[in-house]
Amino acid sequence: CRHVAFTDCGYWTTWLGGLCHWTVLLLWCCTPERPFWLFLFDFVLLSPGTRDYNPKQMAIREKVFNTIISCFKRHGAENIDTPVFELKETLTGKYGEDSKLIYDLKDQGGELLSLRYDLTVPFARYLAMNKVTNIKRYHIAKVYRRDNPAMTRGRYREFYQCDFDIAGQYDPMIPDAECLKIVHEILSELELGDFRIKVNDRRILDGMFAVCGVPDDKFRTICSTVDKLDKMSWEDVRSEMVKEKGLSEEAADQIGQYVSLQGGMDLAERLLQDAKMSQSKQACAGLTDMKQLFSYLQLFQVTDKVVFDLSLARGLDYYTGVIYEAILTQTGPVPVAAAQNGAGEKAEEGVSVGSVAGGGRYDGLVGMFDPKGRKVPCVGVSIGIERVFSIMEQKAEASAEKVRTTETQVMVASAQKNLLEERLRLTAELWNAGIKAEVMYKKNPKLLSQLQHCEDSGIPLVAILGEQELKDGVVKLRTVHSREEVRFSYTASLSV
Amino acid sequence: CRHVAFTDCGYWTTWLGGLCHWTVLLLWCCTPERPFWLFLFDFVLLSPGTRDYNPKQMAIREKVFNTIISCFKRHGAENIDTPVFELKETLTGKYGEDSKLIYDLKDQGGELLSLRYDLTVPFARYLAMNKVTNIKRYHIAKVYRRDNPAMTRGRYREFYQCDFDIAGQYDPMIPDAECLKIVHEILSELELGDFRIKVNDRRILDGMFAVCGVPDDKFRTICSTVDKLDKMSWEDVRSEMVKEKGLSEEAADQIGQYVSLQGGMDLAERLLQDAKMSQSKQACAGLTDMKQLFSYLQLFQVTDKVVFDLSLARGLDYYTGVIYEAILTQTGPVPVAAAQNGAGEKAEEGVSVGSVAGGGRYDGLVGMFDPKGRKVPCVGVSIGIERVFSIMEQKAEASAEKVRTTETQVMVASAQKNLLEERLRLTAELWNAGIKAEVMYKKNPKLLSQLQHCEDSGIPLVAILGEQELKDGVVKLRTVHSREEVRFSYTASLSV
Repeated sequence: CRHVAFTDCGYWTTWLGGLCHWTVLLLWCCTPERPFWLFLFDFVLLSPGTRDYNPKQMAIREKVFNTIISCFKRHGAENIDTPVFELKETLTGKYGEDSKLIYDLKDQGGELLSLRYDLTVPFARYLAMNKVTNIKRYHIAKVYRRDNPAMTRGRYREFYQCDFDIAGQYDPMIPDAECLKIVHEILSELELGDFRIKVNDRRILDGMFAVCGVPDDKFRTICSTVDKLDKMSWEDVRSEMVKEKGLSEEAADQIGQYVSLQGGMDLAERLLQDAKMSQSKQACAGLTDMKQLFSYLQLFQVTDKVVFDLSLARGLDYYTGVIYEAILTQTGPVPVAAAQNGAGEKAEEGVSVGSVAGGGRYDGLVGMFDPKGRKVPCVGVSIGIERVFSIMEQKAEASAEKVRTTETQVMVASAQKNLLEERLRLTAELWNAGIKAEVMYKKNPKLLSQLQHCEDSGIPLVAILGEQELKDGVVKLRTVHSREEVRFSYTASLSV
Repeated sequence: CRHVAFTDCGYWTTWLGGLCHWTVLLLWCCTPERPFWLFLFDFVLLSPGTRDYNPKQMAIREKVFNTIISCFKRHGAENIDTPVFELKETLTGKYGEDSKLIYDLKDQGGELLSLRYDLTVPFARYLAMNKVTNIKRYHIAKVYRRDNPAMTRGRYREFYQCDFDIAGQYDPMIPDAECLKIVHEILSELELGDFRIKVNDRRILDGMFAVCGVPDDKFRTICSTVDKLDKMSWEDVRSEMVKEKGLSEEAADQIGQYVSLQGGMDLAERLLQDAKMSQSKQACAGLTDMKQLFSYLQLFQVTDKVVFDLSLARGLDYYTGVIYEAILTQTGPVPVAAAQNGAGEKAEEGVSVGSVAGGGRYDGLVGMFDPKGRKVPCVGVSIGIERVFSIMEQKAEASAEKVRTTETQVMVASAQKNLLEERLRLTAELWNAGIKAEVMYKKNPKLLSQLQHCEDSGIPLVAILGEQELKDGVVKLRTVHSREEVRFSYTASLSV
């Protein structure tokens, strides 16, 4: 009954959220030149929560991807790809409460299929199916969630994930530390402003739940509630634990004391001495590994940004060890949603704009797909690239520098009429020589419009053909910016 | 009733085809080391007609994409992206008989959605929605068809398309010629063997149908039948026209005479003089443009591969002018299916392995998405990349050269125990300097296994740390291939 109520509530929230969102979009898009109804038409053509990328956005996207892929390659990662849809049963039981957000395909005969929800479960399925026991791979692809979209904050129903994972049986915490090093490198190189990487361990959380008196069968659901601490106040989280999930007030308050703790290797050492925590074998194993992790992070010189934070829980069911999440602590405009959600309580870490990377260790997932249950330990990280795109786009808007959307080096133009054939011939020769060249698709374009196109799209050079030049066997090459001209000897290599 | 029979037949054919396919796959995969049932398990995890790309396949894919993207950029194209699903109504009525192959999403509340069937319709929707009247863009993304998969021939239900399109009102045939130039460049650069590009025009086909006595309302359906000439003999095509589509025998025979014609600019000139063809205004417009197209293709020096072929029809509804299709005329192994289908009848063009590129002009599609029906003329080409991947993979298998799946330049290794910290520190320094480096995730790995990893994955250099080297402040750099060693001075820049 509670489940039905929750689903219904979700439905109406989504619907109302959608309505508000559309109204904002409509108001935002309305200008005196364009009537209201035109925008209605615009948006009806695209499924809500999805977006097209125009050439300018693609140019920014390419730049961001290049940075990320370079980092993955620098760390020796291989690349794989998997289909956009998986068998429905592959995704079942992997995402906890979020399973309701999975997109299913219509049953048109054949297998029941679902769009992938993340890249981690397909990766685990890939490992089991191909009997791969160790690999360091990256995978960049779109994933799908029937979530309430918030496009101004970079939250879509179709969005990219950039995943880096290390599978294999290794000595503890070495691959885990490399994942954090990668997050540090990527966020630094993208120049998104200051950031912080929160780290915790599922074993520490479970141990904490145990010593605080949470019944075993409530670990996962209480963990889901703790995960909301980045969006909700402690009071609301406590209330959900006690009223909705039936936890005792005493247990909730004990959890409250722990989840307020933040620190580094020192905190791990202190908790190992903690009278209650030290009673849990699981917690001790997690805390010992946490100390080890921080020692490797020191070698990697990234401890300045990493915080051991006991409130970090992460929603997904499949994590078994270290978990982490990176947040930007400052960006340009403060998003409305973050300001509303009482971010003041976390004033010490600035205004959170949400996570830009997250991940952790999941040692049991691959075994779920293996007929004999053989496990392959894995640890990985996913970069939340859409939010990065949003920030980069805002930066590009704010900057005076123009984003080029083509790489064309030279425009083949003419000042006189009837030179189409000569223009096409020269353009083809440039293409054949590997030079990026454009030519206007008009028989007799005006020189001014040819030059204007160069200005508009940032083409640096124009090759100008004229009757006289053809007679002299030369071509004029003009630098658009400086208007300097040089003459090159040129004899058409082809006579038709 | 016929429609139902057709669908049923299609269902059983699909089912039987699927069964045969699985049997072949199972037999192919069975080796003495792996029991039969293991493969059953393997394939159950993946939806039929889809595939994973392993790192080796990804390395080949990256190389092919780089070739294609370089070509698109050389021609001044911008890049866009659209969502993987569109509103169902966006795709309705665009694909003729093939519409039954569209994947629909389950109705989970909200809009009815379908997976994109190609990149052309989303492009037209994008242009109309964003009021773009001219653009030269490329788009590389996966599309989805509920087709009978034939994976050994590179035919999947999920597959990549690489599209290049030019939208805008220009002088006739100039952008059309550039599209053919692009196909020529890409197929030449990929070194797939000899190829041929067939060209025709929808207006010539329609004019031909008119003068042969095909009723107006049967143009599209007869066109669909003509389109099957690359897979069926003329006798079977004629039979379908007469018996299934109700065309008179006389009309069918007249069509038969025309569709056997092939040539170049000369054929266009001859048909302009043809007593019957010249009666059709449409045909004459198409033939005049065909002459113009060949004159531009001469300037682009690509006429060696282009054939004006009246049997080329292309299945899709939306073409309005020039259409084209590229086929490979020779490849290594002859695919079974091509040999079965009586390819002997087309012996003059070698054994067809199916189309690797196709496209044409579609001047009406954008107007279908505009509230006022404003048209934007478009012409484009789509590279059938999966078939290219299949061929490249076969070539890689056959070649002795090893495909590297990482770009790692140096492995940080040690010969002695207890040097993990030093290895990690040096590795981090290399990463920070932008050098692609790997390190083993073991506390005390054997030197041999570290060197073996370099051999296996093609890493050219090993940096070897040892007690003595650390004392001397040096690091040994060994070339894996030649075993030559040099010593570099190295002082750890970080003390923990």
